[in-house]
Amino acid sequence: MDPLTIVSCDCHAAALPAVYRDYLEPAFRARYDALIADPAAVARRAAQIIGPNAPTGDGDDEREPLTARWDMPRRIAELDRDGIAAEVIFPQPAGRNAPPFYNIFGHPFDANDPAPAAAGCRAYNRWLADFLRDSPSPERHAGLALVGLVDDVPAAVAEIEWARKAGLRGIVLRSQPLSGPGWHDPRFEPIWSACEALALPIHTHGGEGLPLGDLPGATSIFFTEVCWFAHRLFWHLLWSGVLERHPKLRLVFTEQFAEWVPGLLKQLDMQYAGTVSSATLTSGLAMKPSDYWARQCSVGASFMTRDECDLRHAIGVPTILWGSDFPHEEGTWPNTAAALKTTFAGVPEPELRAMLGDNAMQVYGFDRAALAAHAQRIGPSVATFA
Amino acid sequence: MDPLTIVSCDCHAAALPAVYRDYLEPAFRARYDALIADPAAVARRAAQIIGPNAPTGDGDDEREPLTARWDMPRRIAELDRDGIAAEVIFPQPAGRNAPPFYNIFGHPFDANDPAPAAAGCRAYNRWLADFLRDSPSPERHAGLALVGLVDDVPAAVAEIEWARKAGLRGIVLRSQPLSGPGWHDPRFEPIWSACEALALPIHTHGGEGLPLGDLPGATSIFFTEVCWFAHRLFWHLLWSGVLERHPKLRLVFTEQFAEWVPGLLKQLDMQYAGTVSSATLTSGLAMKPSDYWARQCSVGASFMTRDECDLRHAIGVPTILWGSDFPHEEGTWPNTAAALKTTFAGVPEPELRAMLGDNAMQVYGFDRAALAAHAQRIGPSVATFA
Repeated sequence: MDPLTIVSCDCHAAALPAVYRDYLEPAFRARYDALIADPAAVARRAAQIIGPNAPTGDGDDEREPLTARWDMPRRIAELDRDGIAAEVIFPQPAGRNAPPFYNIFGHPFDANDPAPAAAGCRAYNRWLADFLRDSPSPERHAGLALVGLVDDVPAAVAEIEWARKAGLRGIVLRSQPLSGPGWHDPRFEPIWSACEALALPIHTHGGEGLPLGDLPGATSIFFTEVCWFAHRLFWHLLWSGVLERHPKLRLVFTEQFAEWVPGLLKQLDMQYAGTVSSATLTSGLAMKPSDYWARQCSVGASFMTRDECDLRHAIGVPTILWGSDFPHEEGTWPNTAAALKTTFAGVPEPELRAMLGDNAMQVYGFDRAALAAHAQRIGPSVATFA
Repeated sequence: MDPLTIVSCDCHAAALPAVYRDYLEPAFRARYDALIADPAAVARRAAQIIGPNAPTGDGDDEREPLTARWDMPRRIAELDRDGIAAEVIFPQPAGRNAPPFYNIFGHPFDANDPAPAAAGCRAYNRWLADFLRDSPSPERHAGLALVGLVDDVPAAVAEIEWARKAGLRGIVLRSQPLSGPGWHDPRFEPIWSACEALALPIHTHGGEGLPLGDLPGATSIFFTEVCWFAHRLFWHLLWSGVLERHPKLRLVFTEQFAEWVPGLLKQLDMQYAGTVSSATLTSGLAMKPSDYWARQCSVGASFMTRDECDLRHAIGVPTILWGSDFPHEEGTWPNTAAALKTTFAGVPEPELRAMLGDNAMQVYGFDRAALAAHAQRIGPSVATFA
């Protein structure tokens, strides 16, 4: 018996509002009380961004087994039940269990004052660090710090440095900066330098688009567009030379599907070669775009489909990280074993091990031996996939 | 001998500034003189939108044979030389031969005052109508009215009605409205009603993205993103129910490639079926998204590649309109015969005729018999593609 060590690159954790409140800097607590007391105000703000059918976030459900978001013994039990040796942890995107004031799919609750949302991110990060430190199996978790609002670049860098010291293992950025034209702006350079120096991968997670107004169809439009906005970080950092200047910087694109990768790389390589227009040949990049993808990027392929698995060579097997999206309803939990069989049956063992665990262990620096011990107990057998 | 009737769905026309000046409402002429006199100011504004390497537009070149943009005998000679029986005409996107004040890739020259750019669009439209009326072969041209700035919806509808009376055969919109969240806004309903009632297809043409600032890499980022923004009209009008409410409205997506169509339709159909998330099932559409595409949309596949031709069944042969992009350097002119052979060799004759001419003749209402007469003289033989 040689079980697979499964790492889910996309899981979510959250605290109860009363717990966040304790982690929130005191100046923001009264405002947080008011926010939590008025779900209608949150719903109105959400509708401005993602339309009249804006989901409220499953953070609202606080029943078993969704308590696994903040109850560590329950969480470990669910990971075991689902056959998952280790996990990478993102915050909740919306609802009352999302980070304080940062509860509108990556938009701050108050569009005119992002300070409370920045404080909410700090509160979430500090809660998460404690939550993971208290785990009976800290080797099974890689928590990501939410650096949601970066207009104050020195403050963002300070948070990144704090995150490294607190044992968090990467950062999450918005799909685009809250203000300004994009991530290619040179003012963000200290963020890229810090993440490279501290070996913290940078993530976008599907979930933030442009505001679409409280208008008919807006929510469906939001879901059509939201993954594209999450991809944007790649070509913003590519063409502005950030990946060239920071060869050890790593980007991970999580829960935004994977089928887009081959077409995008083909388009970018054509643009690089000047096939589309010579006016685009302005980058001074030493390699073609697909080489930077292969060297520095991963796709966090949550609830990966069979079609995506069939495209794995075009995407690049070493760049694929499977994810369960635990505990969200669109993910594979608690039926991961069946979902894995549907997606991966017939895939050769080395590729299977790479996509389901090895790649993630390398990106996040998990302890392979420690996780293998858990896998002996809970991991699915390779034979299952024959 | 049974030659092909070739229609290019993507050609460009333009006037000289002195000619536009005569068509411009007098109140704007002094400002136009100042604009034309200061190319550095135009370049600075262009750099704000598409970065430091913003192309100036080949409108700047006024030598033979590019004079075909405004010299009708020369234009007819170039169509003949290139084997093209008829053409669909868009404006220039940038440079001194772009419509007055609308010369920054679809952004008005003055971001704070769109009135001059709206007047510039009217001037262009009136010049174009006269230009085509004076052609010795008016049956060979379908001109499109530029309705670039639609904040004043009644004024936009008036321009659309004028365009129909003036013999223009469709309208061109920006990839997104200049203000507001998108084309799904119900305030635009009168525009959709007018275009449906007057049988004027609505176009986006690759060329307008979000402003990226005068920052390193911005121009390359612009070219990576610009086609996606041009696609947006489809799902904005789809999910907001416009295509459902206006079943005879036609959309044409020109010079933004064609390979994206199958993947997008798959994504939208999955979203419609609720595979991605039940929260997206809010549209009340009677058919799946790909059915609306097949019923109401075309892709204007300028300088179509062999890869795109190989994907033609997934895209939908009846929805593909080939284009030369005459007289732009990235297009097939003046080597269309060779380009067509590279792209289409071995394609069965009915599909060849559909993509190269029949589909466009149906969308734009060209006179088939009149064009067939031109094709007898200049069209390539079907045998060339065996």
